[in-house]
Amino acid sequence: MSEFALIRQLLMSATGAPRSDVQLGPGDDAAILQAPAGYRLATSSDTLIAGRHFPENTVPEAVGHKALAVNLSDLAAMGAKPAWVSLALTLPEASEVWLRGFASGFGALAAEYGVALIGGDTTRGPLSVTLTVTGFLPESQALLRSGAQIGESVYVSGRLGAAAQELGQVLQGGSLSPDQRRHLDYPQPRVELGQQLLPVASSAMDLSDGLLSDAAHLAAASELAVDIDLSRLPLAESLASLPREEAWALASAGDDYELLFTAPNVESPRLEALSQTLGLPLTRVGRTREGDGVHCFERDGVPFEGRLQGYDHFLR
Amino acid sequence: MSEFALIRQLLMSATGAPRSDVQLGPGDDAAILQAPAGYRLATSSDTLIAGRHFPENTVPEAVGHKALAVNLSDLAAMGAKPAWVSLALTLPEASEVWLRGFASGFGALAAEYGVALIGGDTTRGPLSVTLTVTGFLPESQALLRSGAQIGESVYVSGRLGAAAQELGQVLQGGSLSPDQRRHLDYPQPRVELGQQLLPVASSAMDLSDGLLSDAAHLAAASELAVDIDLSRLPLAESLASLPREEAWALASAGDDYELLFTAPNVESPRLEALSQTLGLPLTRVGRTREGDGVHCFERDGVPFEGRLQGYDHFLR
Repeated sequence: MSEFALIRQLLMSATGAPRSDVQLGPGDDAAILQAPAGYRLATSSDTLIAGRHFPENTVPEAVGHKALAVNLSDLAAMGAKPAWVSLALTLPEASEVWLRGFASGFGALAAEYGVALIGGDTTRGPLSVTLTVTGFLPESQALLRSGAQIGESVYVSGRLGAAAQELGQVLQGGSLSPDQRRHLDYPQPRVELGQQLLPVASSAMDLSDGLLSDAAHLAAASELAVDIDLSRLPLAESLASLPREEAWALASAGDDYELLFTAPNVESPRLEALSQTLGLPLTRVGRTREGDGVHCFERDGVPFEGRLQGYDHFLR
Repeated sequence: MSEFALIRQLLMSATGAPRSDVQLGPGDDAAILQAPAGYRLATSSDTLIAGRHFPENTVPEAVGHKALAVNLSDLAAMGAKPAWVSLALTLPEASEVWLRGFASGFGALAAEYGVALIGGDTTRGPLSVTLTVTGFLPESQALLRSGAQIGESVYVSGRLGAAAQELGQVLQGGSLSPDQRRHLDYPQPRVELGQQLLPVASSAMDLSDGLLSDAAHLAAASELAVDIDLSRLPLAESLASLPREEAWALASAGDDYELLFTAPNVESPRLEALSQTLGLPLTRVGRTREGDGVHCFERDGVPFEGRLQGYDHFLR
């Protein structure tokens, strides 16, 4: 069997969930898909590059998982239900062990969310993964960055900062506990939360670049100002013993793949109930007001004078 | 303006055609699209890597054009009408001149075929482009590789071999005439032909890997044998003075992005008329029969004993 045929065969084992709306899957010039009546499509593409978006020595299962998780996180941030994914994989050599691991991590997460692999491409080169995911949105609902209104509450899901802390340890040559490794390598996209937020939230996005830069995108898109109360940030447990500024910096450094969203204050009880149902913290960390930009406070009314920087994927 | 913001702004100038079915374009976590009623979607992804799929020194306009052309060729091979494209671009540095050129080549071809850029990603790394294109197919028609029947005619569009000849000259350090350069850098996807073939052809695929390896894929998918009469190959004019085996090798070496298709013999007059209408040669180069594999003949009944090899993108 040629190297190329081996790759194709191994990747096809990452096929994900069988779906009746995939009329023709991988293997022809294009896939043929039947979009559901009464829904719109939400589509997003993300590229992950070895050494930039994940450490070079990341196990292949984790690369497969993370590449899909990051893309599903974008669909979650729209409130869309994931359906299809295409996979463009560039790899330096056709290692059977590596490909089996990749297919296993990718396929397991795809199956978990009912996503079918519909096609893609494989090429030789430095390791990178580009996925294009498509999901379904109701005709009249979507979570846009531009939907926030003045006088609303700003929320984040989950707990922040552990991913940046773990990544920092890895980059400094330190080792991670099995729990830390698992947390860093296998982020959980907030797919269920996103769909549940459709009738509740006025805007949403996922926290990939970091709380403050992402909040700035949301503020700009919605043409308003966002005030963040740093003392309310839901910090990961592992940050508890750190000086607060260090903890805040990690919590706003990105890679947590939680959702940032806004909702009218009147929705607070509904969000509390949703948090209970999902077993996921939904924490009010700020509010929107007239103006522009993101403004941080140490506590109510006391502006934070320090500097907490997120990052820009292109500049990493 | 940050490097990243510059890239985004420049790429947004490659926006292609405005389309009312794009409800939300680039800039949010995902695009929102309205699939048309009564149609299915055809989706394909291809990655182009510098130094592998195009020479390193290719002008950026040509990289933008070719990346999209190669993907549109896949939709053409299904008979689909192109609609949307997402663009994942990895580049070593944010050169404004390069990005302007890329956006210009990409945007011009997108506009020509009414394709809208719906989003994507930009990352830093060795130059590569991954596109995912989506088009529309009628509910009951598509050109699959698996549709060929026994006793049909096998056709190719256009003229073959010029691209391989030109690429060979470049790789050997030779120079190209302006016409050759233009032909190599700006392949024309057979989008109109593909759609016109929907009611005529029984199967189709595009010639990207080379006539013989691609015909082998078609034969395998349709579970039959393909006989190719090499003396009928529509050779590019620039191959006229070459020894015939050399010309045949170039004509089956790939990168021509023409269509290979089968049709019942009774469709011959319709295909002749279509060739006239499009101003594009459609040449009968062989036939299908019971059996498997691809079999080459020097002329009727005389098997060709030489070896003509296409290539495998992963092995290049």
